Amino acid sequence: MNEEKNVAKPAIRKLVPRRYNTSRPIEKRPLSINKNRERIRDDSSPVKIMALGGLGEFGRNMFVIEYKNECIIIDMGLRFPEENMPGVDFIIPSIEYFSLNKNLKILGIFISHAHYDHLGAIPYLISKLNYPPIYTTPLTKEIILKRQDEFNHMKKLDIRVVDSEKNNKIEFANFMISVFHVNHNVPDSVGFFIETKQGNIMYTGDYKIDFNPVFDRPADLTRIVKLASLGVDLLMIDSTGIEQEGHSMSEQEIFQNLEIIFMRSSGRIILATFASLIGRLQQAIVLAEKFNRKVVINGYSMKTNLAIAKKLGYVKSELKTVIDVKEMHHYKPEELLILTTGAQGEDNAGLMKIINKENKNIRIQPGDTMVFSSSIIPGNEMAVQCLKDSLTKQGANIYHYKMLDIHASGHAHKEDIKLMLNLIKPRQMMPVHGFYYMQKLFNDLAQDVLNLKKEECLLVSNGQVVELLHSKATITSKFIPANYVMVDGLGVGDVGEIVLRDRQALSKDGMFIINLIIDRKNKDIKVLEIISRGFIFMKDSNELIKDTKEKVTQIVHKNMQKASQENLNEAYIRNILRDEIGLFLFQKTERRPMIIPIVMEM
Amino acid sequence: MNEEKNVAKPAIRKLVPRRYNTSRPIEKRPLSINKNRERIRDDSSPVKIMALGGLGEFGRNMFVIEYKNECIIIDMGLRFPEENMPGVDFIIPSIEYFSLNKNLKILGIFISHAHYDHLGAIPYLISKLNYPPIYTTPLTKEIILKRQDEFNHMKKLDIRVVDSEKNNKIEFANFMISVFHVNHNVPDSVGFFIETKQGNIMYTGDYKIDFNPVFDRPADLTRIVKLASLGVDLLMIDSTGIEQEGHSMSEQEIFQNLEIIFMRSSGRIILATFASLIGRLQQAIVLAEKFNRKVVINGYSMKTNLAIAKKLGYVKSELKTVIDVKEMHHYKPEELLILTTGAQGEDNAGLMKIINKENKNIRIQPGDTMVFSSSIIPGNEMAVQCLKDSLTKQGANIYHYKMLDIHASGHAHKEDIKLMLNLIKPRQMMPVHGFYYMQKLFNDLAQDVLNLKKEECLLVSNGQVVELLHSKATITSKFIPANYVMVDGLGVGDVGEIVLRDRQALSKDGMFIINLIIDRKNKDIKVLEIISRGFIFMKDSNELIKDTKEKVTQIVHKNMQKASQENLNEAYIRNILRDEIGLFLFQKTERRPMIIPIVMEM
Repeated sequence: MNEEKNVAKPAIRKLVPRRYNTSRPIEKRPLSINKNRERIRDDSSPVKIMALGGLGEFGRNMFVIEYKNECIIIDMGLRFPEENMPGVDFIIPSIEYFSLNKNLKILGIFISHAHYDHLGAIPYLISKLNYPPIYTTPLTKEIILKRQDEFNHMKKLDIRVVDSEKNNKIEFANFMISVFHVNHNVPDSVGFFIETKQGNIMYTGDYKIDFNPVFDRPADLTRIVKLASLGVDLLMIDSTGIEQEGHSMSEQEIFQNLEIIFMRSSGRIILATFASLIGRLQQAIVLAEKFNRKVVINGYSMKTNLAIAKKLGYVKSELKTVIDVKEMHHYKPEELLILTTGAQGEDNAGLMKIINKENKNIRIQPGDTMVFSSSIIPGNEMAVQCLKDSLTKQGANIYHYKMLDIHASGHAHKEDIKLMLNLIKPRQMMPVHGFYYMQKLFNDLAQDVLNLKKEECLLVSNGQVVELLHSKATITSKFIPANYVMVDGLGVGDVGEIVLRDRQALSKDGMFIINLIIDRKNKDIKVLEIISRGFIFMKDSNELIKDTKEKVTQIVHKNMQKASQENLNEAYIRNILRDEIGLFLFQKTERRPMIIPIVMEM
Repeated sequence: MNEEKNVAKPAIRKLVPRRYNTSRPIEKRPLSINKNRERIRDDSSPVKIMALGGLGEFGRNMFVIEYKNECIIIDMGLRFPEENMPGVDFIIPSIEYFSLNKNLKILGIFISHAHYDHLGAIPYLISKLNYPPIYTTPLTKEIILKRQDEFNHMKKLDIRVVDSEKNNKIEFANFMISVFHVNHNVPDSVGFFIETKQGNIMYTGDYKIDFNPVFDRPADLTRIVKLASLGVDLLMIDSTGIEQEGHSMSEQEIFQNLEIIFMRSSGRIILATFASLIGRLQQAIVLAEKFNRKVVINGYSMKTNLAIAKKLGYVKSELKTVIDVKEMHHYKPEELLILTTGAQGEDNAGLMKIINKENKNIRIQPGDTMVFSSSIIPGNEMAVQCLKDSLTKQGANIYHYKMLDIHASGHAHKEDIKLMLNLIKPRQMMPVHGFYYMQKLFNDLAQDVLNLKKEECLLVSNGQVVELLHSKATITSKFIPANYVMVDGLGVGDVGEIVLRDRQALSKDGMFIINLIIDRKNKDIKVLEIISRGFIFMKDSNELIKDTKEKVTQIVHKNMQKASQENLNEAYIRNILRDEIGLFLFQKTERRPMIIPIVMEM
């Protein structure tokens, strides 16, 4: 059990030391030229670049680019909580910086693509920012609006559609933003090229390069090169895929492998994937039509995403391909494809409900072919393993992405990254999106590939202020607030360290309430009640409860004897009970429940 | 963010359908022959094979092989808890079966190797089984005894050493057990060949086949074949590695890659691995000596394991190689190797204490080379990612097993499994160790490779009774108790479903105590106190507390008005407060804290 999953790899690979690169150094592009306005050489106001989230972490992407008293925001995402944040729904960026700088004007919010780690914080933050206009592509707009439906008390959003095909630019006095198309695993993903008074900034967003995307255009490399040829003084580039060797896979390959599964399956096919992978859903629908299968959609978010994608023409299907789940019984198993959410083993998602027999219409039946067309998000490994076990027990045959290439990452792998760096040839860069370790690896690679100096590859943390002045980017020692804001139910930011610590403590050993009455005059006490939850099973622990009651009485009595009347206040008794009963219970059980004495006076 | 880590793989691999195997079927071995005793053909008492743990899960391995009123036990392991079992230290097998069958005599407990998933439950179970003798190899014996030190109230264990080199057999009237050497990532690992009145059973234990092990002998294939040639009626075989393609790596390869790291590192080397990987530790020590580095050991379990291994000759080092941490400052960085536990990001282990600056003597310093010579146990991905981020921030360069082959699995991969099946040629088999899904994949492979029939490949669950009668193994519909027993502190088995459910609920939304006094006569009530933990931060929530107090008063008053005196008992008030205040708080916060009303009468 001690370890696992270690496919034999060719030995001693990746051992060419980084610094032994023998290729001729790449020539750097000249200083950036802003054709559209004169660089004011004596302008000493820097452009500031700051991350409110998205550095040293996955998710919560939000970047501020500021000049004098104006700024633009790029992305406004959320992040899913860690294991040690029980009960938290998600984490969003803090916008304290804007409260501290009331005069800072937000010209616009630019959203790169339709994933929640880039747009999910909008409903929580935009009202506090006074609803600045949002600039984004058509699909992303619809996804933002769909999400907004859940927050119906809010003002209507001002969303302005940008078109990555039409080279249109968004112009402000001090910023000019161009949009370029990239590939990702949701269509209509873009990056931004931002011309400022102090130099040009390029932001890739989440990207990969796919020459054979399915129902999407390939990343617009010529436009990327054309924009980059104006000079890129600071490249903000996705570093998530830096540990992955080679090129990321094309969706076309996945299509071919899915086709083989369709060819070989003689029963129903159940395909689980992320609701946001609209291209993948379209692939499945096309295959269903080819193999004469009707499609049943299981999962609310998948249904709405598909409806949006269909409305915008990203998904095309015959009128009668998608059927209602209630019509399912009219068809033979080999005539059905079920698309479902829940590939991560999430408790409330589609697939789990099928497996737990909570879904009224769909059950796993022997002969089903189950296809996991998604990778496993770190942390969900065990949940997915349990899914697979349950599916096997119920008779399904399973295909997952480790057996067959039926899922591709949305992020550029190492070789794609090299290509992108060679196309853009930035003068300076800062890796974004991903852990600190990945940012560092990325910088190592960039120094190697582009012959950049170490100081030209910025390793930046959330909140840290980067300044761009006369085309030169510098990490400063200044920091702006960039702390976590936790969302739990309706509360935004009201769950902090203390509440979390209490939750962790409660989850580990539960709690132990001691309810007692003190008769100060007669120097007598009475333990009315002991209530414990999550500590021991009370019905089986009569003896321990009895002993504890005695111990409580003893402790309070002893202190009544020796203490002066002043010391015998409630707070004092509470403290002493917390300490001594804590110790007593630990000795008996080696557990440390949270002890809550409730002391009353007669 | 939606997904990650998916190296481009050759497309359409593994697509040859299982049943299209065109190789000539393997001839089956004849019925097993028990040279040492006559098979009693008219004996209708089956040999029963039952798992108390270790099927459909990782860990908790424990198997019972029973004939008439005698049995042997193979392995007695623990399992680490899942995420949804907060506070639980580990899970062990239930031995209720033995309490229900007082006349069943345990002849001996056979332990296959020195890992906790195969021996960790001994201290909790052996006294309840009346200390039967334990049979195992020298190293495993010492590890068992070391662990026993933590349980000093117990009787001395009766451990009898078996020698896998000397072909010795353990003979009982109805069982004869032979021991054979296999490779794993701890030395001195063995499997068992068990001759019974009804047929022969072979148990591989955790195994891999390593022709170039480091400081160990290769698995004894000739002995395995020789024993198997007696006929294997039921092969119980490790299925953990079934999803891994190819052959598992040899420790020799790892040695070579570690050597390259030693060659290239100009500062200190810090190598983190499992304390149980004694071979790996020895490799590191040999390399340290070769490259003139002194070795510092950081971590209690690593120190004791090394001491045991050294005593038994599994680890050899010069007298002055291993130094005390306090002597460290006498040496230059390039003269030091630090071996440490905590490669999984465990809170209390060696590496974490270094990173958190809790270790008095060791700090990360720029130029350190950090080597993770271990894989990541599923569930620890995020913790390890955080480790890597902290190390990068503190200036270390990191090597991990995905970058370079510096860790090998201890389990046979697919091609090794095929080899083993071809060497053993069982008549019937049941995969053990691993998830149900893996057991199923294993059976598919075995049917393919050995041309076994489906009913000859047993897919068994914990507790399910398999019977071996006249060399034929059958899965029965009988089940014996095989439920989880949870260990939490000193409590063994006292944490059950209810306690766990409370802990989960508490961890999600905390709790909310309402302390009130009812004056029945005057129909008056008073809310004395509201205490909440893990729900909201109380100091910031005065308004909610005030509103809730009013609501409580209101609810109780209303019920006082309408209800008869009988209905106004404490239980009734508690229930109604739990429901209505629960709803009230949910409407205000969308959280569901556990509500605990404490009601007193005036």
